[in-house]
Formats: sequence, C-alpha cells, structure tokens
Amino acid sequence: MRRCLLAASLALSIGAAHADEGMWLPLQLPDIAAQLRKAGYEGDPAQLADLAKPPMNAVVKVGGATGAFVSPQGLVLTNHHVAFGVIQYNSKPDRDLIGQGFVAGDRAAELPANPDYRVLVTTGFDRVTDRVLTAARGKTGRAYYDAVEAATKAIVGECEQDAGYRCSVADMHYGTDFYRIKQLELRDIRLVYAPPDAIGNYGDEIDNFMWPRHSGDFTLLRAYVGRDGKPADFSPNNVPYVPPAHLEVSTQHVNAGDFAMLAGYPGTTFRNRTAPEFAQQVQWQLPARVELFGKLIETIEAAAAKDEDAKVRYAAQLASLKNGLKRAQGELDGLRRSNAVDARAKDEAAMLAWLAKQPGSQATLADIRAAQAVLEQARATRERDQLLGVLRSQTQLMRAALTLQRLALEKGKPDAQRESGYQQRDEALITGQLKQVQRRFAPEVEKAVLAELLAQHRALPAAQRVPEIEAVFGATAESARAALDALYAKTALGDEAKRLAWMATTPADVAASDDPLLKAAAALMPALLRVEGEAKTRDGELLRLRPAYMKALIAHRTSQGRAVYPDANSTLRVSYGTLTGLEPRDAVVYRPLTTVQGIVEKHTGEAPFNAPAPLLAEIAEGSFGNTADPKLDTQTVDFMTNLDTTGGNSGSPVLDARGKLIGINFDSNWEAVSASWWFDPRYKRAIHVDARYMRWLMDEVYPAHHLLREMGLPVE
Amino acid sequence: MRRCLLAASLALSIGAAHADEGMWLPLQLPDIAAQLRKAGYEGDPAQLADLAKPPMNAVVKVGGATGAFVSPQGLVLTNHHVAFGVIQYNSKPDRDLIGQGFVAGDRAAELPANPDYRVLVTTGFDRVTDRVLTAARGKTGRAYYDAVEAATKAIVGECEQDAGYRCSVADMHYGTDFYRIKQLELRDIRLVYAPPDAIGNYGDEIDNFMWPRHSGDFTLLRAYVGRDGKPADFSPNNVPYVPPAHLEVSTQHVNAGDFAMLAGYPGTTFRNRTAPEFAQQVQWQLPARVELFGKLIETIEAAAAKDEDAKVRYAAQLASLKNGLKRAQGELDGLRRSNAVDARAKDEAAMLAWLAKQPGSQATLADIRAAQAVLEQARATRERDQLLGVLRSQTQLMRAALTLQRLALEKGKPDAQRESGYQQRDEALITGQLKQVQRRFAPEVEKAVLAELLAQHRALPAAQRVPEIEAVFGATAESARAALDALYAKTALGDEAKRLAWMATTPADVAASDDPLLKAAAALMPALLRVEGEAKTRDGELLRLRPAYMKALIAHRTSQGRAVYPDANSTLRVSYGTLTGLEPRDAVVYRPLTTVQGIVEKHTGEAPFNAPAPLLAEIAEGSFGNTADPKLDTQTVDFMTNLDTTGGNSGSPVLDARGKLIGINFDSNWEAVSASWWFDPRYKRAIHVDARYMRWLMDEVYPAHHLLREMGLPVE
Repeated sequence: MRRCLLAASLALSIGAAHADEGMWLPLQLPDIAAQLRKAGYEGDPAQLADLAKPPMNAVVKVGGATGAFVSPQGLVLTNHHVAFGVIQYNSKPDRDLIGQGFVAGDRAAELPANPDYRVLVTTGFDRVTDRVLTAARGKTGRAYYDAVEAATKAIVGECEQDAGYRCSVADMHYGTDFYRIKQLELRDIRLVYAPPDAIGNYGDEIDNFMWPRHSGDFTLLRAYVGRDGKPADFSPNNVPYVPPAHLEVSTQHVNAGDFAMLAGYPGTTFRNRTAPEFAQQVQWQLPARVELFGKLIETIEAAAAKDEDAKVRYAAQLASLKNGLKRAQGELDGLRRSNAVDARAKDEAAMLAWLAKQPGSQATLADIRAAQAVLEQARATRERDQLLGVLRSQTQLMRAALTLQRLALEKGKPDAQRESGYQQRDEALITGQLKQVQRRFAPEVEKAVLAELLAQHRALPAAQRVPEIEAVFGATAESARAALDALYAKTALGDEAKRLAWMATTPADVAASDDPLLKAAAALMPALLRVEGEAKTRDGELLRLRPAYMKALIAHRTSQGRAVYPDANSTLRVSYGTLTGLEPRDAVVYRPLTTVQGIVEKHTGEAPFNAPAPLLAEIAEGSFGNTADPKLDTQTVDFMTNLDTTGGNSGSPVLDARGKLIGINFDSNWEAVSASWWFDPRYKRAIHVDARYMRWLMDEVYPAHHLLREMGLPVE
Repeated sequence: MRRCLLAASLALSIGAAHADEGMWLPLQLPDIAAQLRKAGYEGDPAQLADLAKPPMNAVVKVGGATGAFVSPQGLVLTNHHVAFGVIQYNSKPDRDLIGQGFVAGDRAAELPANPDYRVLVTTGFDRVTDRVLTAARGKTGRAYYDAVEAATKAIVGECEQDAGYRCSVADMHYGTDFYRIKQLELRDIRLVYAPPDAIGNYGDEIDNFMWPRHSGDFTLLRAYVGRDGKPADFSPNNVPYVPPAHLEVSTQHVNAGDFAMLAGYPGTTFRNRTAPEFAQQVQWQLPARVELFGKLIETIEAAAAKDEDAKVRYAAQLASLKNGLKRAQGELDGLRRSNAVDARAKDEAAMLAWLAKQPGSQATLADIRAAQAVLEQARATRERDQLLGVLRSQTQLMRAALTLQRLALEKGKPDAQRESGYQQRDEALITGQLKQVQRRFAPEVEKAVLAELLAQHRALPAAQRVPEIEAVFGATAESARAALDALYAKTALGDEAKRLAWMATTPADVAASDDPLLKAAAALMPALLRVEGEAKTRDGELLRLRPAYMKALIAHRTSQGRAVYPDANSTLRVSYGTLTGLEPRDAVVYRPLTTVQGIVEKHTGEAPFNAPAPLLAEIAEGSFGNTADPKLDTQTVDFMTNLDTTGGNSGSPVLDARGKLIGINFDSNWEAVSASWWFDPRYKRAIHVDARYMRWLMDEVYPAHHLLREMGLPVE
C-alpha cells in the first residue's frame, strides 16, 4: 500500500478538478486536459507542459515576481510595482521618472536597471526526489533535516557550475517530491516604458485589494545579453536577448464569461495543511496575531505620544503592524466566512476513513499520527515562540545586540557551515540593518515594547517561560523595569559608530564586551539557539512524516477523480478560469470590467488619485479607437477573473482561450485575502490590467508607437 | 406681465415633471395626475390633495420627523431613531428597553412617552398670502421683514386660540405664497413596540448613509386622548385616539421596478436658489467650511493633546466638527460630480432670456436684479459673518458671556418684543446650556480656538474687520494672546454657580459687572447686533424681491410644460418614483433589496453589529413564512427607491401603487448628500425598512401577534 500511495502521488494526479481552483504545475496540464478544454481553452494542453518550451518559457521571473517576453527582441512585460525599483533607480532630481513616467524613444535611450535586478528564464525542471532523499532515509528529526539540506546544497552547487545559471530545488507536497529548477540569469535589464505612477499606481494603498481598481500597473523592460548571446553585466555593447519564445498581445475584445488563463510564480499557500493546522490558524494564530499586534500598536503609540521625534521614527513600524493586523483580521474574517476549518476537517476525516479501509495502510496512518504529534508538540510552546519572534522583529537595539552576538558565534565556523543569514555574503546586509536602527529607534519606545513583551512572558504558563529571560529581567514588573532602565541607560549601542564598530571586531571581542545590552543578548542567546534547534528538529520530522499525509490525500482525491496541485512554493504555476464579477456581500455586485469613467470619478488632484492631465484630457476627448470596448462603448482599464493567485503572481500574463495576452495580473480583492489557506470560489478573484488600456496608453496618451509595432500591435 | 407671472405661480403649475424628482405639495398632485398615473399610481390623485382628508391625514408629524397612523386605534408607525427619546425615557437600570427592545403585551402595558413628545395631526392648510403681505406691501428691507413677522405672529396667535391645536405659517417659494397650517397636538403618546437597538439601529453611524443597510429602524407608538376625544396630558384614564384615517400595511411582495410613493415632512432644500447662490455654495461656502472646520479640528486636537481631561470634554464638539466636515465634503463632491453649478447657471440663463422676451417683464427683471444685488452685498462680508457665527457656536465660556449679555439686553423689552430665543419661555433652555458648559469646557482649548479665529479675523480685508474685536483683542497675535490670557485667568464664569447666578440678576447688574469676560462680551455686543441687523434688512429685501425670481422661474417652467414644487420647508410633501438600485460608481452595482444574509455577514458580536441571538437563530432556522420574498427565496430587510427625500423625512410611510404601506423611510445614500441643493436622478436614493421585515420580526422573532391583528395583518 505504501508504494501504491507513492505511485499515485508521483503522477501528480489525473481527473477533473474543483471548479476553477488550482495553481497547476505545467506538467499536470495534460492530465487535466479535458477540464481545461471544457473550460474553454482552445490550444493543446500538452504544449503547456514543458517549462523549457513555448509558451511557458516566455513566462519569466522578474524582480521576485512574474513577467513575460512580449517581443522577439527581449521586451519583458511586468507590473509597474514590480519594476518600481528600476524606475526609482533611474529617477533623479531633474528626471522624475516616477512622477513623469518614461518612454525610451529608441534602444539607445533605454536605461539600465539597478545592477542586482534580474530576469530569470527557466531552462530546466527535473525531478531529483531520490537524490534529495537518499541520505535522509532512515534518519529522523534534525538529522533528516540536515541530510535534505546538504543534498539540496550539493545539487544546487553542481548545477550552478554552469555559468550564467541560477539553480534551486523546489519541495513539492511538503517533502514528497523535489524538483531541480535551472534558470538562465539575465542581468542586463533596461527600462523601456513606464507610465507615470499616478497611472501605474493609481489609488495606491487606498485602492490596494479594493475593487473596482483603475490602475495601469504595467511597465516594459528589455533584457540584454553579451554579443555571444550569454548573460552579461551591463555594457553598452550588449545586444537585446532573443528569447526562446514570446507571448502575443491580443487585439481582440474581452467580455464577462470569457475563458482566461494565467501563468506565474505564486509564493506560498497552505491549502494542503492538516485540519488541526487549519483550526490552529483560525482559533489561535490569527486572533493571537491580531491581539499581539493591537497591543504593540497601543504600546508604541502611547510611548511615542508626547515625543514628535519618536512618532516619526516609529511611523514605518506602526504602519507595518497596522497592515499586518488588518491582513490577519481580513484572513480571519475570510476563513470564518468560508467555514474553512469545518470544511477542511470534514475533508480530512473522509480521507482518513477512506485510508483506514485501504489494505496495508497501517504504516501510512502511523506516520500521519506521528506528524500530528509533532504539530501538537509545537502547539505546546506556540505562545513562547511567538513572543521570542517578536522580541527580535519588533525591537531595534535589542535586535542589533542579538544579531551581533549571533554573528560572532557564526563567525567561529567555516563560512559554508554558518547559519543562513550570517554568512560572509550577508554581512553587508547586516551592516545596513545596523545603520537603519538610527532612523527607527527611540529608547523610551523600545523599553515600553520590551516591558509589554516581558509582561506577556511572565503571564505564560511556567512550562513555557524561558529561564534565560528571567535571569536577565527577573520575574516581576519592577525587576523588568529596573533592568530595562539600566540596560538602555548604559548601553553604547545607541551610538551608530560604536554599534557598527562591532562588525569589525573578533568574536572574542564581542564575547568579552562590557556593553550591558550585548551582555544581555549573550545571556539570551542559549535560549534562542535552543528554541531554534527544537524547531529544526520538528521541521526535520515533518519533512519525513508529511509525505504520508500528502500521499494519502492525493490518493483519496484521485479515487474521487480529482487532481491535486502542490501548495504554492514560488515555482511556475498555471491557473485557468473565467472573466467574472463578484458579489462581495449582500446587495452589492461588482462588474468585472472597469472603465476610464472610474478614473475621473476617483480623481481628486491629490495622490494617489491625481490622474495626469494628458490622461484626463484624452478621456475627456473620448477618442479610444480600436481599444474601446464595443459593448461598454468606452475605454476599459482593469478586469477581474476568478483565477487562482497569491503573492508572487504580480506581473503574471493573463491569456485568452487561444493563448493571446489579454491582461497582466497585479492585485486581488480583499474578500480573497484568506485564499492562501482556502480557495472559496464565491470570493476569490484576481485583478488585471486590461491589455487594451495598455495599448491605448501607448498609442494615444504617452505614445510609443515603435514599441507597439515591435509587439506586432496596430497603431491608430 | 407681472400679473401674468403671478397667476402662473399660484396655480403651482401643471404639466409633466422632471423624471421622478419632486417634493410635491399634496394640493399639486391633481395637477400632475397624468405623470403620477404614468409612473404607475393606481389610485385617484385628486384624493391625495387634501391634507385634512384620507389618506394624507394619516401622515403625521412625530418628534420632529414623520410617522403614520396604521390602525383605527391610534397606532403610529415611525422610526426607531425618531422614537428613541421615548425608548430612552422608559429605560431604567433594571429595564433596558434600548438594548432589549419592548413589546407591550396589552394596552395597560404601553409606556408613557416623555411629556414633551408630540404627535401632530394636520387639520387645516389654508392660503393666507394676502393677510401676511398686506402690511408689508410698499415697505422695504427691515420694515418688510418686521411686517411679515408681525402678520405671521398674529395669524398664529389667533389660530392657537383653539385649544389643543398648534399653528404655523409656511412660506412657499421664498415669500411668494404663505399657508397657515393647523395641527391637532396629541400629547399623551405611549411606547407600544420597539425592537432592540441592535435591530432598530443595526450598523449605527458606520452604516449611516451607506447602502447596503440592514436596519429594522421602526417603532410603534400609540396616541391617546381624553375621554372627550380631545388632546390631553397623560392620564391612565385616557383612551386611544381614533384617527380620521389610517394606512393599511401591504401583504404583497415588492420588486425592483415597482411604483413607490412617500409622504412626509422634509426640512429644508435649496434647489430653487439662484445660480450665483449655487456658485457661492460650491466655490466658497462648502470649501470654506471644510477649511475652517479642518483648522478648528486641528486646533482643538493640538490644544487637548496633552490633557486627557480636555480630550473628553471636547470629544463631542470634535465629533460634530468632523461630521460637519465630512458632510460638507460629501456635498461638495456630489455637487461637483453632478455639475450642479453649470446646470443651474444654464437653467437660469435660459429663464432670463425667455423672460426678457415676455412683454412687460421689466419690473420683474428689475426685482431679480435687485435681489442679486442684495445677495452680492451679503457676499462682501461672508468671511466676517462666518467667523462671527463660529465665534459663538464653537466656544463655551465666550458663548455663555455673549448669551448673558444679550439676555440682559432683551430682558429690558416686553416679552413679546424680545428676540426669539431670549423670551421668558427660552430661559430654562438657556440655563441648561449654561450648565452644559461645565462638561465641555477647558480654558486652554477655548483660548486656542479663539486665538485661531482672531488670527483669521486679522487676515480679513480691512473693510471686513470688526472694530469692536480689535478694541477687545488688539490687532496683533501678541495682543490677542495677552487679552485671552487675561480674560480667562480672571473671569469667574468658569465657575458653574457664579455663571448661573447671572441668570437671576437684573440687566443693570450684568451691565455693571466687573467680570472681564462679561465686559468683553458687552464690548462685542454692538458689533453682533449691527451684523444681525444688516442680515435682517437683507432678509427683508430678499423676502420682498425673491418672489419675482420665483414667479419668473415658475412661469418659464410652465411654458415648458413642467411643474414646480416649492423648496422643502417642513410642510407635508409627496414624492413618487420607483423601487430601484444604484450604480454608485464605475463597476459597482447596488441591488435594491437587502436580505437577512447581510445581517449575518455584518455580525461581529460587537455594537453596532451585534445582531441579537434570537434574530440570528431565526435567520439560521430560515422559516420566514409569507414574509419571505418569493424571488430571492429569503427574508428581505431594507429596500431602496429613487424617492425624493431630505432630513425630516425620517419615518415617512412608503406606499405602493394602491396606497398600501410597503415600507418606512429611514436613511438615504451617501451619494445623495448633495440632494438638498441638486436632485441628480443618477445618484439620489432613499432607504426604507421593508414592511415584510417588520411583519416577520413581529410575527416570529419578537412576537406581537395582537398588534399584527390590530393592523389587519396575518399571523403565521
């Protein structure tokens, strides 16, 4: 039976999928060819399966998100917000590309991106499961974790021997299957066309997640290579990269009900997590985060209330906490609205009941039970672990002291064995973080934050309390206050030069330091390392045990004729569905297409609703030509589909039934913020720039006729 | 020609009206019978014309808003928010009628309202134009104003000789026509049925103005009279009032597109104001209010920032300023969105062009020009007048000092000649205001507010500056600060007992007072009286001259076959239209009916979204019986129409094509906040409780079957 389940998992499944849900691996598409065709796809699903062949090799990773080649001369279409760093990098006091936008009149005028900006073209996607797991088999816990890590590093190192390539190993189905991904790393990227941010980012944070949207969130880049056709750093002698394939931009109109398909690199989803993990997310994790973040916001605001300078220093941290709280609350509301906990529990119970009836399923069931036990074990210290995480992430000087101590510790090892994040290549980043402290730190606020966290620590059950914390801060509010006063009065880490000086010293110097905050960090370090070690041991066990759960889940779904896609892990996925509106709540209907009328309605003249004068003038003139929607009799801006997306899908090309590009993904709706855990077809929508808006802008408003022609598009 | 225009105005016009716009006087309805029938009304419009006959005499004034008799035994249906004072008055620590709601099991259990609560039944509506204007004719300015005032007072005094009646004179079309309204004043009102406020006020301020709404904003009261059938104070011996008519609650279903009609007492509209007044409202008044209120909010928040006590004291004033700012901004946005200034200007220009071609129109044109000149004169001091208004309305101790000085002045006159607001009957109210100061005043905040207003005063053009203000506060920021410090350090008015003591003294005592704030108020008083006198003179001139404009407007519309309704003035009006949704903005559609699903969606367990457990249980059970909408297959809650309403229409009965009650008005949509100036049929909607929701609540959730039977309604 064990082997039978395994076989089922490796096929990555056959059969009809759930509604339109799914972030499919391209290699799964031939298996779901019937449902793809039924949904309206007119091409050959088999042709979509190979990442290294057209059209999938036209879809690339850009600046951590997605983009696509749209011309034979290396033109890459992505989001304005994905290319924002490039635009910012090229903006100067006398050349405000953010505010004014940019149109390169010819190749020579194209502007080089920041040197670390990359476009990655996938050239290989190969299963390496056996190689990854060979050494791990027979091991458990931390040893299993380390064996997988070592094998992965070896595979990547070997693959990257090929100059110009970047490699990685993707874990599919939580340790069940591993794929080596090989990507050509293009590093001479140039800015070709960007609308003003008042178009590319119209509505900004206010409209973010909020339909209806009216953003022209797109930008065109171009990849260059050396004259030998190989990746190269920027050089004026480089030539445009000739991609193995590019997508054609559609000249057809789109309508509600039309088939749509999207390819991109979604980051992380949790949909195949176990029922108890779903319950914990809704019953503890999200409410706990809402409460903790709420408490931290309150604490920081109160501590900074009378100090205008501190208010400025903590503005970014407060904004981030408020955004995190809002996101957590939105996710919680969504999961409750969808009854996700119940639904997942029923689904899992049915699977386990089915599994118990299968011959020879005892070993699998034992592994599943063992995995659940590991998760339960983690639950026993979840409050403590959350507090320790925040102790680092929400402080400035304390974090600096902990980082310096940890770095000193890691420096004692050969570089390859150092903990990730503390290797030689990370030291510049650490220096940057230590500098940043200066703009974000006020001692009274940090002391208030720590006092609050220490109070929460004292309120933990005895078994969760950390002896090292009590050793440094005592067991009462009074002792904590006294210790904090003493630490922050006497530490010299608040001085930037003195803080940075520790980067240049030896581990022994750090260990011998008299600075009270560095000493406190040293005293806390054993606890942090112990907790980190426990987590790695659990992670190793889960990596070993979860495949049993995943194989059972896949086998059960297969028995129902349903295919299963792996949870998102930043690998290329395909989703298909329909151009469709939404009924977000009682008596409210969202239409699936927005029009330029909405730009005018939202325009206030002040950012983020400051539509540029040329745009408003062209809208007022109303001559939209062949990009105007014939049914709506005006120019569309954005549209909505029920495609399955998550963070990382920014910039994903949206294709029609014939594989033509009809839009570019850039946002999703607030009601779908819980979709990383649960896909609810009633609420999950993705939001795209309508390619017709892009074409109109490039034709009429900020003309770039040479680029339209390069993409094979008509010019009016 | 003058006479010809007059005749046209008095007919109050014949012909087809604009779309569904209109707050028609009932006596106009026979004139627009054709369009009423065309819109779907199946009754006889002539029957709607007489306020003292059925069905219009079933519509009553309740607690400053509207209600309707719905049984032959004096049952009055109005809003929960209109009856809120009655519910609050009867709530006690051990009997929380606000939170729990109330169902009187029988007549004996019905609870008496606060003694000043009134239901007014209109019994007479008679034209008294000649009597009001006889003495005024030939006069101008202040004399015209005083003559109209005196004639009005005489008519009211004579009418109120009839015990148990309250009378008033309504000005139609800005001085063109006057009507005497006689109303039976029922003063023994009792609480019969109220849902919990979590139903009656579900969503509260958050949902206010925001479709979709899910509020059961209704309450049933009962009017009682003495055994002789006449109005009487509360007595256990009183008997239910037998109204001359009552409305029947419909047992039919309603659908989008159905005819709807509403009768009620809308407060004030400005739709027939002149084009320059529209321009001033959009170009100066609303932006100036936004700026001034914003500045005051900023000033109060900054001054109270470090004083928790002051924050509490100014919370209500801040909330009111913020609400005022939001309303002004909403009105401004709406008027701009509708291009109201241009539209009104074109309309007026067309009218004047038409008028110029009419024979003998010179005198009318001269009056219109003269009226415009008076309005222009007012514009010359508008900034000063706004500042003086705020100087009183946004201060506490300064206002108290000004009130005490003004009262001393008025006390020197016979009571009947005192300024309205300072007569003997007003003294209890003034005492109450002087007491309230204690909870709303902090000297540092008031000084900051006055410093800001004085700075704005110093920035006025010289011609607008007030010499008395400069005499008290000097002409510089330093002198103002010094004067404020001295005034507030030394005044004894901050002491409640000392402040109130002045109410008992003679005018001579007040005049001789040493209190620096009272002395400052005395020094400012001549300026305030002078400005008030100028305003009354202008008002008198406008009362004399505006009728020429109104008659021209009516004659011009009549020539186009269009009827004209007078601007709202708290007299009974009828609006008709359609049950219809809304497209508030690009890509967003509001359906016209909400359902109980929305209550569940909004429920958080915390006010204002704390749906009561019995309601949630009944919704979950889903047995809605004959009140369930057959198309939606669930219970509806509220619905939306394009009926023309404004403040004062709360509680208005909504009737179907056969005159049956299908709902009760309680709110309108945010997009329509500018409708008091301009009716835009794209955006103006009114929001009503669906009578089926009321019936379901009374049948299933908080049963009151005896009341349903009394209203002739089925019980499941």
